[in-house]
Amino acid sequence: MNNMVSVAILGHGVVGSGVAEILLTHKQKLFASLGEEIYIKKVLDLREFPDSPIAERFTKDFEEIINDLEIRVVVEVMGGLHPSYEFVKRCLKAGKSVVTSNKELVAAYGAELLEIARQENVNFLFEASVGGGIPIIRPMNQCLVANIVNEVAGILNGTTNFILTKMIEDGMQFEDALRLAQDLGFAERNPAADIEGHDACRKICILASLAFGKHVYPEMVHTEGITRITLEDVKYAEKFGCVIKLIGRVKKLPSGKIDIVTAPMLVPFKSQLANIDNEFNGIMVRGDCTGDVVFYGKGAGKLPTASAVVADIVDCCMHLKQRRFLYWADGKGDNIISVSESEFAMYVRAKGKNVAAKAEALFGSIQSISTPGSHRTAFTTEKMPYGQFIEKINKLAADDVEILSTIRIGDL
Amino acid sequence: MNNMVSVAILGHGVVGSGVAEILLTHKQKLFASLGEEIYIKKVLDLREFPDSPIAERFTKDFEEIINDLEIRVVVEVMGGLHPSYEFVKRCLKAGKSVVTSNKELVAAYGAELLEIARQENVNFLFEASVGGGIPIIRPMNQCLVANIVNEVAGILNGTTNFILTKMIEDGMQFEDALRLAQDLGFAERNPAADIEGHDACRKICILASLAFGKHVYPEMVHTEGITRITLEDVKYAEKFGCVIKLIGRVKKLPSGKIDIVTAPMLVPFKSQLANIDNEFNGIMVRGDCTGDVVFYGKGAGKLPTASAVVADIVDCCMHLKQRRFLYWADGKGDNIISVSESEFAMYVRAKGKNVAAKAEALFGSIQSISTPGSHRTAFTTEKMPYGQFIEKINKLAADDVEILSTIRIGDL
Repeated sequence: MNNMVSVAILGHGVVGSGVAEILLTHKQKLFASLGEEIYIKKVLDLREFPDSPIAERFTKDFEEIINDLEIRVVVEVMGGLHPSYEFVKRCLKAGKSVVTSNKELVAAYGAELLEIARQENVNFLFEASVGGGIPIIRPMNQCLVANIVNEVAGILNGTTNFILTKMIEDGMQFEDALRLAQDLGFAERNPAADIEGHDACRKICILASLAFGKHVYPEMVHTEGITRITLEDVKYAEKFGCVIKLIGRVKKLPSGKIDIVTAPMLVPFKSQLANIDNEFNGIMVRGDCTGDVVFYGKGAGKLPTASAVVADIVDCCMHLKQRRFLYWADGKGDNIISVSESEFAMYVRAKGKNVAAKAEALFGSIQSISTPGSHRTAFTTEKMPYGQFIEKINKLAADDVEILSTIRIGDL
Repeated sequence: MNNMVSVAILGHGVVGSGVAEILLTHKQKLFASLGEEIYIKKVLDLREFPDSPIAERFTKDFEEIINDLEIRVVVEVMGGLHPSYEFVKRCLKAGKSVVTSNKELVAAYGAELLEIARQENVNFLFEASVGGGIPIIRPMNQCLVANIVNEVAGILNGTTNFILTKMIEDGMQFEDALRLAQDLGFAERNPAADIEGHDACRKICILASLAFGKHVYPEMVHTEGITRITLEDVKYAEKFGCVIKLIGRVKKLPSGKIDIVTAPMLVPFKSQLANIDNEFNGIMVRGDCTGDVVFYGKGAGKLPTASAVVADIVDCCMHLKQRRFLYWADGKGDNIISVSESEFAMYVRAKGKNVAAKAEALFGSIQSISTPGSHRTAFTTEKMPYGQFIEKINKLAADDVEILSTIRIGDL
């Protein structure tokens, strides 16, 4: 039919069912924008959904989708790497455009899939893979056209941000805040990917690849989670005028190399990222012409994420014959400096006698707060390469000081 | 030539020279994105710029541009309504795409110019007209595809936000803050369009037209500036847990009509808009699927604004044969409720005896703060139609109370 584009959706989980819902409930709005109907021809899922208004269009067989020449756009919302990767690759090679919300997939295979899309002259779009409902990939790609981006930094994981907010605002312990997040559905039963920083790392990898043109793989990025952040750190951070946030950050250095890290950081109150609380995400893009631009919103959830997927579907439908410019080359990590070269000012919490004096002798100028009587001290250092910091902190530990925690200070 | 798109720039002022600068300095980057060179064939300005690297391409004669069939994209950055309007109209009718940063033009003639662009199958883009370097028109248009937008609210004028920030943070009087803004180049010598709210009004009109599909003209919008905001109001606002910001806001009501206003408002500390300070802008878009999305950055300035213009130029060059979907119909204002129907909670500062008791008798539940001995009281009311508020406040004034100021409380 002329006024219709057929699409297939791979996966009918949280995001997939949201995509189907928006395509059905916002049908007229979408038709008005596009001038064509987006018709869900097939939905792939191994489960049965007899109550779905499109129950008869479900299939368990991917071959039905790949072999259907009418299906021009395929939406991958299954998550995980396999068989998502194989399915997406086959769809692109079959000349179908693909939209995905799968950050794991894009972080692991983005360069390869973008290259296939380029060769086949189809689109591979993934707005929903970073920041959920926040438009970021497209605006950044747009910003990038007339800007040299020097830095991207963000709160990219809603689960950990919710936990840290509860620790900061309500004085909850980490474990209690995690349990609350799980009870409220913000954290999964197995929260490892979130609290150990892997999810945030995948997202900063995608943004770094986009900003600097070479694929950055998660294995190339030093990644720390928030499991070792204590309430005591949160309280000391406040005294230093900061909140603790899990930050993914990539920065272009004068050498042309990039410095990329995912780790909890002390963020000064005055930073735009300091006020992004609870399950919200915020992403700062620092361009040479625009200055700082910040995007804020819900980074996850069924409808926010699904609405970003649908916007990509519409873009694919509008550009069936013309590719959107979205591309980066493969990368070997040779444009990334090592974690020991990466420069940060540091926060340290330690226990022992005369910690401040000992730290000053090692680190030079520091700011310190001691809690009288308890032999506990927190201090912050000037900026230095992380390797140099670790050397000095080892010397401090050898001088009868117990190092309780060390956290980077974000220059955000 | 095949790998080249010729453009003309109307105006070589602050923004125009920035556009030329970016097109020249980011030439390779732009070529990499577009696969074509953007060639500035002509620049229209009545002044002479003998030192410009493209001095020989300047002209004082618009006819040279309109009659040049090679020029496919025209950039209007002259500002003001005339002859901008006539020039843009003629360009569109001649089949040239137009990019503008001119909010006055878009707010006054947007519907007409978009309709001409539709008829001629060319693009009329104006990303830079709202929020300077912040991507907002394009992301909102994208958000809109898969969302029903219910509300847009923003700090849309950097000059007034700078002045209010100085009053809030440094306790400066309005006049002193204005003078500082002028000295720093944030405010013009004739600051009326900024401080009386007209600039912010034009921008919320553009966003409202885009969000709700019918042109909203500035004359249809109740507009108040910040000239009557005193330091005393700023301090009372703080006691009520708020900051004062100049807000442009449009909201869709259950009736289907819209409520639009430009006015200073008390914004609660916890709002994402409360932390947007100095010359920065911030815009919140409330969608049915995405929830709140906030865009933040520099709302003005040579390079931020010019980089948004350049992004639009690139988009036009990519879509010379295909129109971007960006359109709204003309509007008669019949979808807008009157200011007296518009509902707000209100802040009042007054002088007299027993103000709190008298106010409570009239307004019902209020929160009040009295300054002992001075007969000065500030109070906040519940939400009510503005017309009803004015009736009650007139009764209060008739009861021997001097009304010193009234300010809306933003539900943001």
